[in-house]
Amino acid sequence: MSLFNRVIQDPASFCLDVETLGECQIESPARLRQFVTNGSRAVMAYEVELLKTAMSKLNGALPSFEMAGPHSKIYHDPAWSRAAILTAGGLCPGLNHVIKGLVEILAFDYGIRLIYGIRYGYSGLIPRFAHAPIMLNPDEVDTIHEIGGTILGSSRGEQDTREMVDTLTRMNINLLFCIGGDGTLRAARDVADECRKRRLAVSVVGIPKTIDNDLNFVGRSFGFETAVAETSPILSSAHTEAKGTNHGIGLVKLMGRDSGFIAAYATVANPIVNYCLIPEMDFEMDGPSGLLAALDGRFNSGKNHAVIVVAEGAGQRLISGAAELRDASGNLLKKDIGEFLKLAIDAHFKRTGRDVSIKYFDPSYSIRSVPAKGTDAIRCYLLARNAVHAAMAGRTNCVISNISGNAYTLVPTQLVCTERQQVDLDSDLWKAVLDATGQLHSFNPNINVRQAL
Amino acid sequence: MSLFNRVIQDPASFCLDVETLGECQIESPARLRQFVTNGSRAVMAYEVELLKTAMSKLNGALPSFEMAGPHSKIYHDPAWSRAAILTAGGLCPGLNHVIKGLVEILAFDYGIRLIYGIRYGYSGLIPRFAHAPIMLNPDEVDTIHEIGGTILGSSRGEQDTREMVDTLTRMNINLLFCIGGDGTLRAARDVADECRKRRLAVSVVGIPKTIDNDLNFVGRSFGFETAVAETSPILSSAHTEAKGTNHGIGLVKLMGRDSGFIAAYATVANPIVNYCLIPEMDFEMDGPSGLLAALDGRFNSGKNHAVIVVAEGAGQRLISGAAELRDASGNLLKKDIGEFLKLAIDAHFKRTGRDVSIKYFDPSYSIRSVPAKGTDAIRCYLLARNAVHAAMAGRTNCVISNISGNAYTLVPTQLVCTERQQVDLDSDLWKAVLDATGQLHSFNPNINVRQAL
Amino acid sequence: MSLFNRVIQDPASFCLDVETLGECQIESPARLRQFVTNGSRAVMAYEVELLKTAMSKLNGALPSFEMAGPHSKIYHDPAWSRAAILTAGGLCPGLNHVIKGLVEILAFDYGIRLIYGIRYGYSGLIPRFAHAPIMLNPDEVDTIHEIGGTILGSSRGEQDTREMVDTLTRMNINLLFCIGGDGTLRAARDVADECRKRRLAVSVVGIPKTIDNDLNFVGRSFGFETAVAETSPILSSAHTEAKGTNHGIGLVKLMGRDSGFIAAYATVANPIVNYCLIPEMDFEMDGPSGLLAALDGRFNSGKNHAVIVVAEGAGQRLISGAAELRDASGNLLKKDIGEFLKLAIDAHFKRTGRDVSIKYFDPSYSIRSVPAKGTDAIRCYLLARNAVHAAMAGRTNCVISNISGNAYTLVPTQLVCTERQQVDLDSDLWKAVLDATGQLHSFNPNINVRQAL
Amino acid sequence: MSLFNRVIQDPASFCLDVETLGECQIESPARLRQFVTNGSRAVMAYEVELLKTAMSKLNGALPSFEMAGPHSKIYHDPAWSRAAILTAGGLCPGLNHVIKGLVEILAFDYGIRLIYGIRYGYSGLIPRFAHAPIMLNPDEVDTIHEIGGTILGSSRGEQDTREMVDTLTRMNINLLFCIGGDGTLRAARDVADECRKRRLAVSVVGIPKTIDNDLNFVGRSFGFETAVAETSPILSSAHTEAKGTNHGIGLVKLMGRDSGFIAAYATVANPIVNYCLIPEMDFEMDGPSGLLAALDGRFNSGKNHAVIVVAEGAGQRLISGAAELRDASGNLLKKDIGEFLKLAIDAHFKRTGRDVSIKYFDPSYSIRSVPAKGTDAIRCYLLARNAVHAAMAGRTNCVISNISGNAYTLVPTQLVCTERQQVDLDSDLWKAVLDATGQLHSFNPNINVRQAL
Repeated sequence: MSLFNRVIQDPASFCLDVETLGECQIESPARLRQFVTNGSRAVMAYEVELLKTAMSKLNGALPSFEMAGPHSKIYHDPAWSRAAILTAGGLCPGLNHVIKGLVEILAFDYGIRLIYGIRYGYSGLIPRFAHAPIMLNPDEVDTIHEIGGTILGSSRGEQDTREMVDTLTRMNINLLFCIGGDGTLRAARDVADECRKRRLAVSVVGIPKTIDNDLNFVGRSFGFETAVAETSPILSSAHTEAKGTNHGIGLVKLMGRDSGFIAAYATVANPIVNYCLIPEMDFEMDGPSGLLAALDGRFNSGKNHAVIVVAEGAGQRLISGAAELRDASGNLLKKDIGEFLKLAIDAHFKRTGRDVSIKYFDPSYSIRSVPAKGTDAIRCYLLARNAVHAAMAGRTNCVISNISGNAYTLVPTQLVCTERQQVDLDSDLWKAVLDATGQLHSFNPNINVRQAL
Repeated sequence: MSLFNRVIQDPASFCLDVETLGECQIESPARLRQFVTNGSRAVMAYEVELLKTAMSKLNGALPSFEMAGPHSKIYHDPAWSRAAILTAGGLCPGLNHVIKGLVEILAFDYGIRLIYGIRYGYSGLIPRFAHAPIMLNPDEVDTIHEIGGTILGSSRGEQDTREMVDTLTRMNINLLFCIGGDGTLRAARDVADECRKRRLAVSVVGIPKTIDNDLNFVGRSFGFETAVAETSPILSSAHTEAKGTNHGIGLVKLMGRDSGFIAAYATVANPIVNYCLIPEMDFEMDGPSGLLAALDGRFNSGKNHAVIVVAEGAGQRLISGAAELRDASGNLLKKDIGEFLKLAIDAHFKRTGRDVSIKYFDPSYSIRSVPAKGTDAIRCYLLARNAVHAAMAGRTNCVISNISGNAYTLVPTQLVCTERQQVDLDSDLWKAVLDATGQLHSFNPNINVRQAL
Repeated sequence: MSLFNRVIQDPASFCLDVETLGECQIESPARLRQFVTNGSRAVMAYEVELLKTAMSKLNGALPSFEMAGPHSKIYHDPAWSRAAILTAGGLCPGLNHVIKGLVEILAFDYGIRLIYGIRYGYSGLIPRFAHAPIMLNPDEVDTIHEIGGTILGSSRGEQDTREMVDTLTRMNINLLFCIGGDGTLRAARDVADECRKRRLAVSVVGIPKTIDNDLNFVGRSFGFETAVAETSPILSSAHTEAKGTNHGIGLVKLMGRDSGFIAAYATVANPIVNYCLIPEMDFEMDGPSGLLAALDGRFNSGKNHAVIVVAEGAGQRLISGAAELRDASGNLLKKDIGEFLKLAIDAHFKRTGRDVSIKYFDPSYSIRSVPAKGTDAIRCYLLARNAVHAAMAGRTNCVISNISGNAYTLVPTQLVCTERQQVDLDSDLWKAVLDATGQLHSFNPNINVRQAL
Repeated sequence: MSLFNRVIQDPASFCLDVETLGECQIESPARLRQFVTNGSRAVMAYEVELLKTAMSKLNGALPSFEMAGPHSKIYHDPAWSRAAILTAGGLCPGLNHVIKGLVEILAFDYGIRLIYGIRYGYSGLIPRFAHAPIMLNPDEVDTIHEIGGTILGSSRGEQDTREMVDTLTRMNINLLFCIGGDGTLRAARDVADECRKRRLAVSVVGIPKTIDNDLNFVGRSFGFETAVAETSPILSSAHTEAKGTNHGIGLVKLMGRDSGFIAAYATVANPIVNYCLIPEMDFEMDGPSGLLAALDGRFNSGKNHAVIVVAEGAGQRLISGAAELRDASGNLLKKDIGEFLKLAIDAHFKRTGRDVSIKYFDPSYSIRSVPAKGTDAIRCYLLARNAVHAAMAGRTNCVISNISGNAYTLVPTQLVCTERQQVDLDSDLWKAVLDATGQLHSFNPNINVRQAL
């Protein structure tokens, strides 16, 4: 990246010739000025910041990543290797494609025959749940990439690490592949640590799953592209419903607990959205710069409809009255911003006497349960290949990352669980959202403060 | 990239502990060995090679690319700017999304009101064709992203550069956006050169279009992701047809004149393919290592069907009897490898007395005429944004490139036209194709030679 | 129908030859016996019953229907005709296709140029709402069939009949096409009656819209086929989610306020459903024959998942505590059976200590806002054609009905509003649902009573 | 039908009141007049004609059809019954859904356990081909409805009837279900006849398969609705490609050897088609009323594109030079009208010096290899149910027909093979095609003759 993105040495090669044509430097338009990034800023700034934070948490060591890929010398003897695969956490497009990839590379490339499918996440490693594992082979997984979900089943919730390592030992498993999000990867880290403590030669390799695309050092996560593509017809439906009545409002809640990537991408991919609300931004409902005033303004200006996209983690400050809730995996459950908005908007217009009709869409389960498509499906297969190569070469306590373009690297599991990736409100992406929506800043009371910084 | 991909300093952090667990270095399995890449190879090798080649053609100058993005000082005064947009060459998903992006950024961010849509590519700049331009504005392009193709129309074939610049001058156009492949970009380069020669302050910025993903220094081109996703149902149909009769063969010709990216990606994305043939590889029909022998072997082993994917530019050596043909843009027309394979396979099995049924699919027009979807649609919008920022800042004779992840850069037009990007037969991607197909190398007579290098 | 469905005269022609092969009459299996329909029952019985009911409400007159189609003599002079089109009630696939059809036939076949699109249903005929009509012509509607919803907008709620007729008079409209459900058609009837009272030569023709397929004498209504097809991926998602965790339950609420056609058809079209609940059936939650006991039994038998489809109007008796609610059109609002089931099932398993995970789907807005597809789209066009032919021939106060196969007839509007069509629990369709689900009857406490009748 | 479609007795109930409003009978517009059907024509006329023809071929016996459905007394004892299922001829959407239905009803409703899946059509009943049958049960077929094609495989070509009956006898099969078109059904008839001759108690029941919807007395055949829906995106692609260049022509060949139903329905379902050519019509290429002149006229009038849909069996007279070809099943192979049109149009415009660009689409295999969707899928299941009920009740030598709406009947196999159903050029459907295309009659030299009849 540093190679390609250096500021150009000889701008004359593709700038209008200042000498011959004369100087012509004009101020950017006002709207644009607040987003200007200066053509020569370092693209890596954000990532460098991230690295520094990560380093400080890793006792000052600079993380640098081994390239993924097959090795000429391997650690585990294929002849006696036994692999196990598990999926944990919520569904995500591509889980079965990853499973298929793991099984095929283990079998075709390394000739490994004993591949266990652990049922229902980590609970499948706890004897008392009595979820017998299933045997996997290339025939079994031949067409599973065509269906969504996971053939292994999944679960949430922590299990006892020592009990799980006991099971791995009893089953003689030396290759464990864990497909899941940060809860899953923290557990994988604990299992790897416990194995090391017991001096067990077990490679524990993670394939990071986050439909929200919010894990650090992972690059683009599998399932995300498919999820974004699936939102488009839903947004079109919301648009159609909104336009179908006078003062119709289509309100769509999308996934994104901590990061608004899906909401932001969905908005630019199908730019019929008028307001896009994500966790990274602050916003008010009331007051002259609030969302309700923005809606009033829109309708007063003669527009007859509005489409609102809201990430599930947005506006949590607004609904902070009730007590905190956590799901079985310990994830903080967001209170439902979708329902809150629906009621608040409805109440507002009842109060102001405008006859609006709100249609509410909550399509998350439909979006996450489809199979991965196209280039997203390829990512699944390549992640799986490299996970097997890494495990066979004796790597452990790491995940496979598609950190840049077609390059895959190994990243210490700990690093991936450390912090979340979020939408940068100064990025090209967010500016594209603002242009695509024509979204007013005015419902964000702090906008001027932030812009001034 | 160099930052992230350095060989890890302290492998102990995620390798099985050699000291405590004991050494265990085993030879990789034979099949795998030929693809081993050594975990620590530099990912940049291929790109460095490319750069060297490019440098030698550019008189030794090291190309380094300016980051795209808005500038605080701009060159063109929005108040008197007149923009023109044209699309040339074959259709590609996302053309309308790019046009929509250009119009919206020009209008919303810079307040430019005179935006011409040039009809039917460069021929719209030649008076004698009498294709009057259309006026574009945000209302006009509001929902065009939902339909495939280009609202402007396209054309192939070269036009006279001076005549085109005459037209630009007469129309007072100072911002020209050319969306197209290498033919289009070469013409854009010529127009920019002619403008410079005449000392006209016209910014000519290209948005590279190549559904085959085969332009250099462009990263992933828009439309490619959508095209790959569109192939999956076609491959499934070919698979269904092949399995529908005894010894059924589904033969699918996909786009890819010089590069087999679509064929390779399509194969990994929907891995029900048995043979994937691309321009980058050599293969034989006859002889013990030919494709026909491979098919014989497959059927003899008890398999009842076969699916073959062939890129349009594959196997040109086999059909080299006839004279060369070029299309109106000067692209060398490949003789039809699809029809050739169909006839050759049919003849072979007629000769050997096996009753096979070949179903031939040629879905290219259906694949390229759909709108861009999901993350591919976002790429369109961001390319368009950055093209406008670059042009307004006085950049010219350059294209916008999505060279790495979310980073966009300006690349001299000349560089993009220099050489084509191809599938690396030693890459992860191609190895994934070989695993997904289980494809025999044996129909490539030179396989051993290549592997030995 | 009577012609084709007579009991065969000479069964020998396609029965196994009893004389030569010997008698072999065996009792049907127990399961089957309760559904036996006797091979020779009259298919018309149900329809005859309907007719009798209708007749008694229509003072004994036997309704018989004029064939739709163009006439050689027409009533309205195209030269001075002015048409108006309105859409009212909820969205339904195909509304725009019907509008396109009306405009094209009016313009192409009759040469009528003044075609008004009334905005937002009947409210567009009430001056104080100030919804100015839009002018329609073939260019305007050329591609509207590709998008869902209605370009005219819709609304619910009754308007004053005399005020509407005043508007028609003022606008000089002599052809009024009303696309909508029974509320819409009752209003159309009132407008037609008022016109007749005032001796105005206005033809008021309805195109019946009911995504639930629940209007009588209408045959298959437009939009229904598309809606059923749209449910399939949703059911697949529910299935995937249910199988994704141990004891997962996918719960899908589909449209169907009074009739369970969509739920029943959806179940047979994608037979991965385990329980299908519709308004026509009675069922209990509790007790040995209740739904909860059925779920217990299913999980006890070793099945790990369950998919439930419920029509919005099912089980109203169970949620009858609260007061009645009506929407603006006067439709009785059903209390939400989906939310009720979700909570009741969740509470049950919390109580019994089984760890289940319920995923709730409410896809109605997504299903109804898509464009009509395939043969459903054709129905739209043919309904529109025949509506125009009928109106031009001076017919009024009638709707167009696709009562049987490809035949279209005119039906008095009054008749269509009289009563609702429902799923016959003794029909082939419902038996197919029971087979496809393997649904136990036991959660219906009255099942034995009904079967005994 | 006769009940519903009688001419209305009392038109006053929904006609504008002639007495009070005054007589107003005007001539229909000229364009319309030629299609006027007289509001009161009998819809049955066409079908009555068909019946008469059929009767004359059946020695004067009036065919009348037994209603399908379960019987209280059955002929075959489920305890010793062995069923076999085969699919023959080309693929069609819904084959697997029919197979699933047959297996489930046999197993669930009748408790039959021995269900053989015969491989590759009738060839699976000929020992020398050595296609061992597979055993089918509900688990095996649980999700096959989600994939296209046939899990049994299919084949074309006649087999020896006696040999097949020998096999049935040896396998002790008493229930044979044959899913296929008229070739398949003729063979089923022969097998049934041979069984009767040998006094074997074998029920042979057909499920008619014709994606072209061209079998008589079958009503709407399964797969047709899905096939029509699948054409829409292809037509949109052709439209997009045609509009993508100046004087672009999108040419789409659709299925329809003898009947143009798919082409006609596809045209009305996605009315962006300009010319629709079907086997039932005659047309010329040359001369003032030919297709080429029509294209010239269209381009001369300023239109820049054209979309042509042609059924594979259209215009056979034009390509009649070469010798007749038949496929293995004895179906007359049509010479390729698509390729012919492409070359002829290209040559014409080369000759006249207009630069056109023709894009040719041949999507048949993609259309027919998808699974059945929505209401079409339901038809599959209900056909299967009724086929099993009929066979168990001792019916043989018959097929199941969905002759009208939701009613299913048994039809003697012989009757279905007798003659083909075709598009009636005087029907509503064809008139809708003419309106949707705005297609000129002038390229049909005999149009005046036909219209005059």
